Amino acid sequence: MSQESRAALYQWPNAEQRVAERQLKREAVLQAAVRLFNRKGFHDTSLDEVASTLNVTKPTIYHYFPNKDEILFECVRRGLEAISEAVGHAQREGGNGLARLKSLMERYALVMTQEFGMCVTRTADHELSKESGAEFRRLKKQIDRTVRKVIEAGMNDGSIVPGDSRMVAFTITGALNWIARWYRPEGADSAEQVAANCVAVLIAGLSPKPGS
Amino acid sequence: MSQESRAALYQWPNAEQRVAERQLKREAVLQAAVRLFNRKGFHDTSLDEVASTLNVTKPTIYHYFPNKDEILFECVRRGLEAISEAVGHAQREGGNGLARLKSLMERYALVMTQEFGMCVTRTADHELSKESGAEFRRLKKQIDRTVRKVIEAGMNDGSIVPGDSRMVAFTITGALNWIARWYRPEGADSAEQVAANCVAVLIAGLSPKPGS
Repeated sequence: MSQESRAALYQWPNAEQRVAERQLKREAVLQAAVRLFNRKGFHDTSLDEVASTLNVTKPTIYHYFPNKDEILFECVRRGLEAISEAVGHAQREGGNGLARLKSLMERYALVMTQEFGMCVTRTADHELSKESGAEFRRLKKQIDRTVRKVIEAGMNDGSIVPGDSRMVAFTITGALNWIARWYRPEGADSAEQVAANCVAVLIAGLSPKPGS
Repeated sequence: MSQESRAALYQWPNAEQRVAERQLKREAVLQAAVRLFNRKGFHDTSLDEVASTLNVTKPTIYHYFPNKDEILFECVRRGLEAISEAVGHAQREGGNGLARLKSLMERYALVMTQEFGMCVTRTADHELSKESGAEFRRLKKQIDRTVRKVIEAGMNDGSIVPGDSRMVAFTITGALNWIARWYRPEGADSAEQVAANCVAVLIAGLSPKPGS
C-alpha cells in the first residue's frame, strides 16, 4: 500500500480515545517514576532518567506533570489509596474484630509488596512539598483511625487481647510497612506467602499458647 | 588581672587534652548533623546548617569530616553499633530463648527512640556511597543473623512458637524499626514505656490465649 493510501485510511482518534490515551501515557510515566524512586531514591532520580526508560524526552513528561514533586505526590497518593481500599474493605467485612483485622493486615501487607505501596513507606514527610506533606499526613491519619477502630472492635468483642489500641496499631502497621523495605519480588516467597506469614506471626505472637 | 598576666597563666592543652577536645568537637558535629538529617532528611540538610547550629562555619566541619556523606555514614554506623550492642548483650544473657529475645527487643526498641538509631531506619541504602552502602548492609546482616539465632534458640527450647525464623525476625524488627518513624520524645509515653508496650504486643500477639 502506498504512503498516500495508508494516510487516506488513517483514523484520527476521537475525543474519548484521546482522553484514554492520555491517561495511559500518564500512567506509564507514574509507573516508570515509582520504580526509579523506590530503587534510587527520589532525590537521586532525574526526570531525564524517567523519560529515558520510556523512550521519550523530559518535555514529554512535563506534558503530564508540572514537576518531579507532583509525580512523587501522585505515587504516594496512589499507594495511600491502595492502603485505604485494603483497610476500608476489611472494615466492611463480616466476622469479629480479629477476623476483620486479619483480612485488613493481609490486604495491607500485599499493598506493601507493590510499587506504589512501597513508595509510601520509603517517602518521608519532608520529601514532599508543604501542601502535599499536609495531605500525606491527613491520609495516613485517616488510615490509622480505621485500623484503630477495627482493633478496638476486636478488643470489645473479646477476639483481640485488650490493650492500648494506638500502640497495637503502630506495632502492627510498623511490621507491615517494613515489608516494603525487605520484600524482593524475585525472592523465594510469593507476596501472598509473605503477607500470610507476617500476619500469622502478629496474630499468634511469639510465646506459645498454654496447652498448645 | 591584666591581659599579660592572664596570658602568662594560660596552660596550653597537652597532647591528651587536645585529642579529647578534638573528639568532643567531632561528636558535637555528629550530634548536630544527625538531628538535622532525621528532621529534614539527608538531602535537604546542608553542611552550612549543621555548622550554623554549632556557631561555626563550614570549613570547621571539614576539619572533622571530609564531606556530608562521611558524616551520614558515621551517624548510621553509630546507630548500628548501638543496635549491635543491644542485640549482643541480650545474646549473652541467661534465660530461655524468649527471655533473651524479650530483652533484645526492649533494648533494640530503645535505640530506635534515639537519634543515631532513628537515622539507621530513616536512611536508605542508596543514600550512602557505594562502599559505605556495602558496609551498612554487612552490619545489618550481622544484626539480622544474631536476632535469628536467638529466635531459633527459643524455637528449639520451646519458649517461642515454632515457625520460619527469617519471617519472624523481619516481622519483629520491622515493628521495632518503625518506632523510629512515629516516636516523639515530647509525647506522653516515655521511651521505656513505648519499648515495653511494643514488645508486649509482639510477644503476646493479638489473639487471646485460650483460658486466659
